[in-house]
Amino acid sequence: LILVNGKRADSISVLDRGFQFGDGVFETLRVSNGKIRYLDDHLERLNSGCQRLQINVPSRSIVQEELRKVVAEYAEGVIKIVVTRGNSQRGYRFTPGLESNRVISFSPAPQFSLENTQVGVRTRVCEIRLAQNPVLAGIKHLNRLENILARAEWQDESIAEGILRDSCGNVIEGTMSNLFFIKNNRLHTPLLEQCGVSGIVRNRVLQYAKDLNTICMEDEIKYQDIVQYEAAFMCNSVIGIWPIREVIGEKSFMNHPLTRKLQERLNTDDA
Amino acid sequence: LILVNGKRADSISVLDRGFQFGDGVFETLRVSNGKIRYLDDHLERLNSGCQRLQINVPSRSIVQEELRKVVAEYAEGVIKIVVTRGNSQRGYRFTPGLESNRVISFSPAPQFSLENTQVGVRTRVCEIRLAQNPVLAGIKHLNRLENILARAEWQDESIAEGILRDSCGNVIEGTMSNLFFIKNNRLHTPLLEQCGVSGIVRNRVLQYAKDLNTICMEDEIKYQDIVQYEAAFMCNSVIGIWPIREVIGEKSFMNHPLTRKLQERLNTDDA
Repeated sequence: LILVNGKRADSISVLDRGFQFGDGVFETLRVSNGKIRYLDDHLERLNSGCQRLQINVPSRSIVQEELRKVVAEYAEGVIKIVVTRGNSQRGYRFTPGLESNRVISFSPAPQFSLENTQVGVRTRVCEIRLAQNPVLAGIKHLNRLENILARAEWQDESIAEGILRDSCGNVIEGTMSNLFFIKNNRLHTPLLEQCGVSGIVRNRVLQYAKDLNTICMEDEIKYQDIVQYEAAFMCNSVIGIWPIREVIGEKSFMNHPLTRKLQERLNTDDA
Repeated sequence: LILVNGKRADSISVLDRGFQFGDGVFETLRVSNGKIRYLDDHLERLNSGCQRLQINVPSRSIVQEELRKVVAEYAEGVIKIVVTRGNSQRGYRFTPGLESNRVISFSPAPQFSLENTQVGVRTRVCEIRLAQNPVLAGIKHLNRLENILARAEWQDESIAEGILRDSCGNVIEGTMSNLFFIKNNRLHTPLLEQCGVSGIVRNRVLQYAKDLNTICMEDEIKYQDIVQYEAAFMCNSVIGIWPIREVIGEKSFMNHPLTRKLQERLNTDDA
């Protein structure tokens, strides 16, 4: 099921600036038991991403109505919302206030082993570095060649995620997730001021940490320093939280009670 | 006129990875007198861009055949070729060897004042900086949010181009062009090892300089050092070469005989 500007369709104009230039933003939402998880957070981030890129924000009530249509048909799976700046002729220049395009599409839920959640996953470090641009940092925009090339670095199915560094050697995120590290019952997660996507679950975890009176630092985390941490986990809206049990060739992490506590919190969160 | 994978159409699948992630490359070709200028250079860059991004290179003879169809209808204007990695389901991962999509579209030639070519243009420096990533540097890929946001910084029609710096303060390019500077009858153009697009006309100019026994250095050019140059010009496949007569608030450049010599060379170049 795909809705293009509200209508069932499977294609978009070639004049769409998402197609021409990656000129847009997206959200990936988990539908579970007929309910979209963290819906308000996603819609909020969609709005703020559009605003930062000067893209016309689609009406929230229209988007919500379209999401309801999808969920009415599919109670389990993943919904992707893409909002682009709209259609225009050739050239980078755009008319302010251009009507944006939105594409809402449903995919079945990906199947993951329970082991990922319970025991944890193996990860590797990626060769490609993330470029630094504070103007784009945090936004879930459609310029994703770095993530794509990073994900293309390995084919081994037993590796769940690749760890991305910036050009200074700071750990930033996974190709499709945010990262947290644990030491002395404190959480540490990379600062996303220069690059990376500000994840919905990442922000939830920052909130849970406050609720649990657990200190969580947004830090510069050098890749060579990850060996100092006791535990680590990755997170996103589709997978939730997965402990990282290994960064191949670098470090084995223990399973940590704080990770389990955050998983429980996330699972029972009603938002 | 738009050809999508060879067929007249005006839309592309929403599963296209160009639309999903900006996962592709493009070329902008000038058609003049029923002939595509620098065609081989463009096809060569298209191929090398695809190869660097591990995108299936479209058959050159098929692309040429499709270009012939367009030129048969339109003798003057601009052709844009977009090649994306192809269609796929959600997620950054791709299947190696995926069949790429190609979209070839025609636009009328933009109308510019002759003054731009003869007297030169006014430019400004952009606030936004280009992020540095050697893996993507030089490629005319579809991740163009930086160029778009740069072009959105001014509306004044009397300003023809914005000058882009990287995060270190090096001048790299214009939003839609490459830059050259002249001092003591030597050409200087920014190194494009960390960011920027390796332009077709830029590479021609490097070749012409050799033919003319004029030294051309690919340099790190600090923005604060541009005041030291006597003259400057911008270039791309659609506009050719335009002298830069001013960087607003920074520097007025003289008109230089070397720029005119290069313009003549470019105009009479048969390739």
